[in-house]
Amino acid sequence: MILVVALNPALDVTHQLSHVDWAGVNRPDAVHEQPGGKGLNVARVLHAGGSDVLLAGLAGGHTGNELKAALGAAHVPAVFADIAGETRRTFAIVDSERAQTAMFNEPGPVVSEAEYAAFAALFGEALPRSSAVVLSGSLPPGLPARTYARLITMAAEAGVPTLLDASGDPLRFGVAAGPAIVKPNLAELEVIAGQPLPGDCAVVAAAADLRAFGADAVVVTLGTDGLLAVTGEGSWHARPEPVAGNPTGAGDAAAAALVHGLVEGTPWPDRVRHAAALGAAAVAAQVAGEYAPADYERALASVRVTSWEQSSCH
Amino acid sequence: MILVVALNPALDVTHQLSHVDWAGVNRPDAVHEQPGGKGLNVARVLHAGGSDVLLAGLAGGHTGNELKAALGAAHVPAVFADIAGETRRTFAIVDSERAQTAMFNEPGPVVSEAEYAAFAALFGEALPRSSAVVLSGSLPPGLPARTYARLITMAAEAGVPTLLDASGDPLRFGVAAGPAIVKPNLAELEVIAGQPLPGDCAVVAAAADLRAFGADAVVVTLGTDGLLAVTGEGSWHARPEPVAGNPTGAGDAAAAALVHGLVEGTPWPDRVRHAAALGAAAVAAQVAGEYAPADYERALASVRVTSWEQSSCH
Repeated sequence: MILVVALNPALDVTHQLSHVDWAGVNRPDAVHEQPGGKGLNVARVLHAGGSDVLLAGLAGGHTGNELKAALGAAHVPAVFADIAGETRRTFAIVDSERAQTAMFNEPGPVVSEAEYAAFAALFGEALPRSSAVVLSGSLPPGLPARTYARLITMAAEAGVPTLLDASGDPLRFGVAAGPAIVKPNLAELEVIAGQPLPGDCAVVAAAADLRAFGADAVVVTLGTDGLLAVTGEGSWHARPEPVAGNPTGAGDAAAAALVHGLVEGTPWPDRVRHAAALGAAAVAAQVAGEYAPADYERALASVRVTSWEQSSCH
Repeated sequence: MILVVALNPALDVTHQLSHVDWAGVNRPDAVHEQPGGKGLNVARVLHAGGSDVLLAGLAGGHTGNELKAALGAAHVPAVFADIAGETRRTFAIVDSERAQTAMFNEPGPVVSEAEYAAFAALFGEALPRSSAVVLSGSLPPGLPARTYARLITMAAEAGVPTLLDASGDPLRFGVAAGPAIVKPNLAELEVIAGQPLPGDCAVVAAAADLRAFGADAVVVTLGTDGLLAVTGEGSWHARPEPVAGNPTGAGDAAAAALVHGLVEGTPWPDRVRHAAALGAAAVAAQVAGEYAPADYERALASVRVTSWEQSSCH
């Protein structure tokens, strides 16, 4: 079983409009709602691919109830510690005339130490049944930046490897706790490195620093340029054919493929091939956390994986 | 008791931002939620002014529960018929840098005839205790345009006068059922008239047409130019001093004052004075459905009421 953590899940609300008046009253053509946040996207992709998954998270209030009901309807197994605050929403305003989307992400409820303790108990109970843990997404207000580091340590003590997809201090502290894989995107890696990273040589050097600080492997997602894995067994760059679509959730799909490969012990070149392909298939899907198997197969055939040699840099 | 109908209430969600990126990801500085929709605004203003009020509406789903809880917390008496659909939301994105607000109003749940019948039973039970009825706002999908006309007829059979604040066909059909007061704004009256109405003479002529079709009195709200009442006792134009602020809910505050005057039997010149003043006080308040008594007092002193003579038009 893969245990996926969602400490700050969201109800994603999307308004589709043919034309947006930013200074007036709009009546959306269509309104969609789905459970969201990075952890939920990872869990939904794993579930869709047939993996045994358990989502463990924090949820509260009316929006929390709606989120739980929607996950239940999608048959994604989940356990939640209740919180006094209200689970957050995100709003996407899709302006089809201008072909652009505005996102409005609420920060999330303040979580107390006692509420976190109730979550940690659920997490600890699930660990003995888990083959891997995914820690993904922002932390809600109130939780310390070392929260992911604490959970990585708990998992390590139970002998369970961890994939960490976070940014800023939660990523920095998490790396030091020794996760099996960290999966920053380029912008997140640049924040950690404290400088722009133009080109693969700079990216690999920054990824190697994260390995030196404690991560077993670092996989950097590069948008349309695929992903770059820096591991103890070598480094690889996987590039899918470009796909038009919605990039939201592509990194979550790649994370799902990476943790699946981790559990299966798939060799790294195959692991990155599947991760790049699943990311591309997620881009082709309209909704984050979903993909069409045919798009996945097509992308898998198109991915080029190249072994990356340190010696190619000066 | 004043019975206020809310067939398509909403949870109003407001995101405050110092700068909006309409093509990117935004993190709101503050998020506010409150029960909304025109009926709820009228009920909250009446309740704040000390009137005995009962809100009767339709609500469903998680958002419906949130709405009921928020009304309960505000101590506004309310009864709801449950619906299978999900109560709608409205989103306001307030861009303080550009000093503009974008509204995104969801259409609302589809309501079945059986769900309407359950509401009509609640409405019928409340009528004998009611001194007046307010019918305000859009109808949810699924309800016929004659719905307000049906409720006006039920109220009339129980001897209870009605104020109708609607637009389009629900207004047109409602007028024919003989409400005591209809309260369109200028744009709504122009839609009914089928032509622009430049100036008071054109407005009064169109309002007189609505009286000829069945309304006892017509009060047209004119934004910063106050309001114009056309009644069987005469016509009056009430103009408050201009006030800066948020015009959302100003018409609802005016409706609350008009129904209060109807119940009290206040002479029309005083009725329109109070309605214009309460509308202005609502503009000065940050939140629809609220006002500061001091703003109301100040506006009341500033309103100029002029009797309007047909003979001044050619």
